[in-house]
Amino acid sequence: METDIVIGIDIGGTFTKYGLVNRMGEVMGENAMPTKSEEPIDSFLERLQSNLDGLINEIGTTAIKGIGIGAPNANFYSGNIEKAPNLGWKGIVPLRKLIQDIYDLPVFITNDANAAAIGEMRYGIAQNMQNFVMITLGTGLGSGIVVNGQLVYGADGFAGEIGHTLVHGRHRIGGFGRRGVLESYVSVTGLKRTAFKMMADMVEPSELRDISFNHLTGVMVTQAALRGDPVAIATYEYTGMILGEALANTVAHLSPEAIILFGGLTKAGKYLLEPAQKHLEINLLPIYQNKIKLILSGLQDKNVAVLGAASLVWEELDKLEKKTKY
Amino acid sequence: METDIVIGIDIGGTFTKYGLVNRMGEVMGENAMPTKSEEPIDSFLERLQSNLDGLINEIGTTAIKGIGIGAPNANFYSGNIEKAPNLGWKGIVPLRKLIQDIYDLPVFITNDANAAAIGEMRYGIAQNMQNFVMITLGTGLGSGIVVNGQLVYGADGFAGEIGHTLVHGRHRIGGFGRRGVLESYVSVTGLKRTAFKMMADMVEPSELRDISFNHLTGVMVTQAALRGDPVAIATYEYTGMILGEALANTVAHLSPEAIILFGGLTKAGKYLLEPAQKHLEINLLPIYQNKIKLILSGLQDKNVAVLGAASLVWEELDKLEKKTKY
Repeated sequence: METDIVIGIDIGGTFTKYGLVNRMGEVMGENAMPTKSEEPIDSFLERLQSNLDGLINEIGTTAIKGIGIGAPNANFYSGNIEKAPNLGWKGIVPLRKLIQDIYDLPVFITNDANAAAIGEMRYGIAQNMQNFVMITLGTGLGSGIVVNGQLVYGADGFAGEIGHTLVHGRHRIGGFGRRGVLESYVSVTGLKRTAFKMMADMVEPSELRDISFNHLTGVMVTQAALRGDPVAIATYEYTGMILGEALANTVAHLSPEAIILFGGLTKAGKYLLEPAQKHLEINLLPIYQNKIKLILSGLQDKNVAVLGAASLVWEELDKLEKKTKY
Repeated sequence: METDIVIGIDIGGTFTKYGLVNRMGEVMGENAMPTKSEEPIDSFLERLQSNLDGLINEIGTTAIKGIGIGAPNANFYSGNIEKAPNLGWKGIVPLRKLIQDIYDLPVFITNDANAAAIGEMRYGIAQNMQNFVMITLGTGLGSGIVVNGQLVYGADGFAGEIGHTLVHGRHRIGGFGRRGVLESYVSVTGLKRTAFKMMADMVEPSELRDISFNHLTGVMVTQAALRGDPVAIATYEYTGMILGEALANTVAHLSPEAIILFGGLTKAGKYLLEPAQKHLEINLLPIYQNKIKLILSGLQDKNVAVLGAASLVWEELDKLEKKTKY
């Protein structure tokens, strides 16, 4: 019998990744293409179909059960991408319908952090957890919340925007002109801004002092920290502190078993984790102290975006199967 | 056939209320006694048993199916009251076990705001809602969160302490020496403090200016506002503003259909609701704007504490019944 397979697609601001994944979470084949969202959506769909068909032929499978898509501001309920700030397609893109028009298969979409949370629950470190929070640290800060073993979509499919909560005592300007937004501190973009704050505040020499704002990348800060650069280490300390402060409010809402971190910033390891754990504990109510695990993703070396999008399909197909049983 | 009945008990800092409630949410009989938590728990249990037995005899029922208890810091999972700040019983009180030792019945406990949320879902304004947040405005600010039609207990039973989140840009000192704690603004205690801030900041005459801090009550501020007192109205405006600011972070986590307010402060009606709604909207991301209903409880005139504790029993008994069916 042929192995059942699903397609996982992750649409990012720059690249769109896609892969074929079996029920065990094994990626049978994967690839990527530029998103080019400045072009019309039709041209994106044409390129995507041609690339997917190529990959499907390569693998030689005919048993594709569904398609899962992770994308910024993608809404599980409506099937639309709505007002995504880092995609060029304006207004509302009815992505689920557009993909279903091409492939006559069940299609599920959600934002990338939600997809990562489901991937972590199905194949990663959260396999035995009923209540946890997933934080993805990329250009922005994404989050996926799991309660009683279920992803929280909220009333309208947009739950889990912890990156847009305001952090007490912090006033850096962020998206939509709001001040103190978590992701303006804790993200690759936030890390760069903090590195420049630290170069202003500190007198120690640093390899970062030779790099302009526009040339600095998150990877440079991380590698400098791992080499012992004092400014880069202080940058991560500050970033971790604010992450800890913000997550205390999350814990007071949800009292999760664990908070799982994923993404480029976690490459800094203890330089991020230790200040985050310390300042989380300092800011927690006594009833929550010394209970919350702040840990790294169990899927660090895998293509989580594709795996997460694929696991969304398995999750929903399993739900449908359960329903038809009773 | 005799009607099935459950016992609902609400243990408060000052009074303990109790009642007999049928499946329709009708309170067949109810009463209250002083909690006196400065005395040992055994003396409380003796008085409670004697009073409950009296009420049961009065009603003449023999078909009691279970007991539900709402109490501060009561943990659904452990069955304990843990470190409740406004109860005299120190450390950990194994309340569920103690009550089960007296009555050989299923006993369920949780905090009062969680009980209120279940009451609202079963008998109140949230009967058709799957995702909402209940906010109870008493001496403190309690909250109960419902996701996918289920109460959120979190990993350890302590989820839903929104009153202890920190509000951006606010620095009043609150519980455990933490600054900017929501409930130090939005609660009866917070309202009093704000009334004094307003008497300092404003020059308008006010009936509140004849009353000392220790003599002022929340009811006095509310009644003054309803009579048009400018200081009392400004006090409510400030309270509502901070409630709205804080709830924006809650929405970014949970994206609920509605936020339901209950308790003494809601007697001020529009003086609380209008600034709360306005400042909630101002602080929301665009994807959430003009979607979240901020409404008053559907159980305002009922004994929600007792009804909520009773509905916890019906909720759990129904779950058990479903489980044994499959």
